[in-house]
Amino acid sequence: MNGWHETEVRVRYAETDQMGIAHHANYLIWFETGRSDLCRARGFSYKEMEENENALMVVAESYVRYKSPAFYEDVLTIRTAISEIRSRSIRFSYEISRNKDDSLIAEGETLHLVTDQDHKVKSIPEVYKRLLTEDDKMAFPANQAPR
Amino acid sequence: MNGWHETEVRVRYAETDQMGIAHHANYLIWFETGRSDLCRARGFSYKEMEENENALMVVAESYVRYKSPAFYEDVLTIRTAISEIRSRSIRFSYEISRNKDDSLIAEGETLHLVTDQDHKVKSIPEVYKRLLTEDDKMAFPANQAPR
Amino acid sequence: MNGWHETEVRVRYAETDQMGIAHHANYLIWFETGRSDLCRARGFSYKEMEENENALMVVAESYVRYKSPAFYEDVLTIRTAISEIRSRSIRFSYEISRNKDDSLIAEGETLHLVTDQDHKVKSIPEVYKRLLTEDDKMAFPANQAPR
Amino acid sequence: MNGWHETEVRVRYAETDQMGIAHHANYLIWFETGRSDLCRARGFSYKEMEENENALMVVAESYVRYKSPAFYEDVLTIRTAISEIRSRSIRFSYEISRNKDDSLIAEGETLHLVTDQDHKVKSIPEVYKRLLTEDDKMAFPANQAPR
Repeated sequence: MNGWHETEVRVRYAETDQMGIAHHANYLIWFETGRSDLCRARGFSYKEMEENENALMVVAESYVRYKSPAFYEDVLTIRTAISEIRSRSIRFSYEISRNKDDSLIAEGETLHLVTDQDHKVKSIPEVYKRLLTEDDKMAFPANQAPR
Repeated sequence: MNGWHETEVRVRYAETDQMGIAHHANYLIWFETGRSDLCRARGFSYKEMEENENALMVVAESYVRYKSPAFYEDVLTIRTAISEIRSRSIRFSYEISRNKDDSLIAEGETLHLVTDQDHKVKSIPEVYKRLLTEDDKMAFPANQAPR
Repeated sequence: MNGWHETEVRVRYAETDQMGIAHHANYLIWFETGRSDLCRARGFSYKEMEENENALMVVAESYVRYKSPAFYEDVLTIRTAISEIRSRSIRFSYEISRNKDDSLIAEGETLHLVTDQDHKVKSIPEVYKRLLTEDDKMAFPANQAPR
Repeated sequence: MNGWHETEVRVRYAETDQMGIAHHANYLIWFETGRSDLCRARGFSYKEMEENENALMVVAESYVRYKSPAFYEDVLTIRTAISEIRSRSIRFSYEISRNKDDSLIAEGETLHLVTDQDHKVKSIPEVYKRLLTEDDKMAFPANQAPR
């Protein structure tokens, strides 16, 4: 597995529910934020891949293990890595931890298939495959980067 | 103003926040649900308008007055009407009430411009204008209709 | 496994993303809608359990396998069942299908721990355990029930 | 009006809709992010106010004027200010612009009433009123602050 990429988010009020904790569906959105940010750090964006290569990274599976609740205003670090890359699929792994006490909030995985606009599976464009397996290109500290 | 159209939604757990009430951003989504449902009742769908006529109904303004909180599992009725229709814009009005005590939850308005895919303003296709100013076509009771 | 409970939702515009399909995080919200609805059909509500018994059903794990995309305005049926019930945990299983062509959209599972307000694990209150393992109490057809 | 407070957000994939732009309901969430961040910069948090003073800032009105669409990955600056503060209500004003071309995305307002946990209107605690009318306490540049 190549290097973990780190991204920070702050839990929004709108993300809490009446249990007083961040609603569990948001974790998939935070994973996605980590994934987008990893791509950006490797030198490209989802957007380009969609527009230039007619290649969409469709989610085929998601798995989340919730370890400890996250609260409003908590600053969380999402650690994202590519755990497997094949000709037509990519698997990402994630860990989320709370900055102030370093506790583990969640871990999980998503599996993605590459498809065209008509939702037909295709091979990952070679250039993106190469970028994804390299190290981060841009190395600003996580908390100076716009998120 | 032509007739009000009624749609029901039930407040989801994910829509609550840590105040124990439905988060205020969801009201715009419920308005949209009412609007979509009104269009469907008048005999067409957003989707067709987007696909067949390259006409998008972009939101230009939204206004919500929150009167009373809504809670998890409350069944709400959204009443939607077209309050103004011009060559390039449509104004919708909304009222949301809670079924079990008939209390007023919110009222509001949205103003929409019709644009093409490139976000350029255009005239409302004549056929949709006519459909929108007619009465509801399909008259099943609100609580028998899938939402 | 006891009987499947069915709930319908219609895909909202706000639930789509720029790929033109329902965003994958919404599936967890639809699962939750199915789960809430199953509880209601068995004769109680989350809300009561939270308020009367200081018992929260916290999500410990979620798994979704996305089979086919769902589109704006699709009417979906969520089938929910309890696949395992233990002293301190409950496992729900789900299947989502599209009504108009009966195609399978997704399947998945969530595992829940019962905790008190302070997020400490506790036993499932006996009365709810019994209700959950019984059959549906209220048997109106899914598409006549307010959701 | 006292000083504007600036906060950055990056448009998330989950925030886009099938029009290919950020869905309009997210603007209320971004306004809230700006508001939370302004409070934090003035030396306190919503959370404390809720917990220590039994004072909730409930949204009574929202108004958004959408000027130009926002796209996935756009970095946006939310400018937030308190435009009116009374004994029981606070009015916030907002402007959202896109960093890369400095174009105006939206402007709006929210009006808040201060209530207790039982949703009864009460006076704004004096200490928070004073903090809110002062200048920002913490002056790190927006893009170095975790959000």
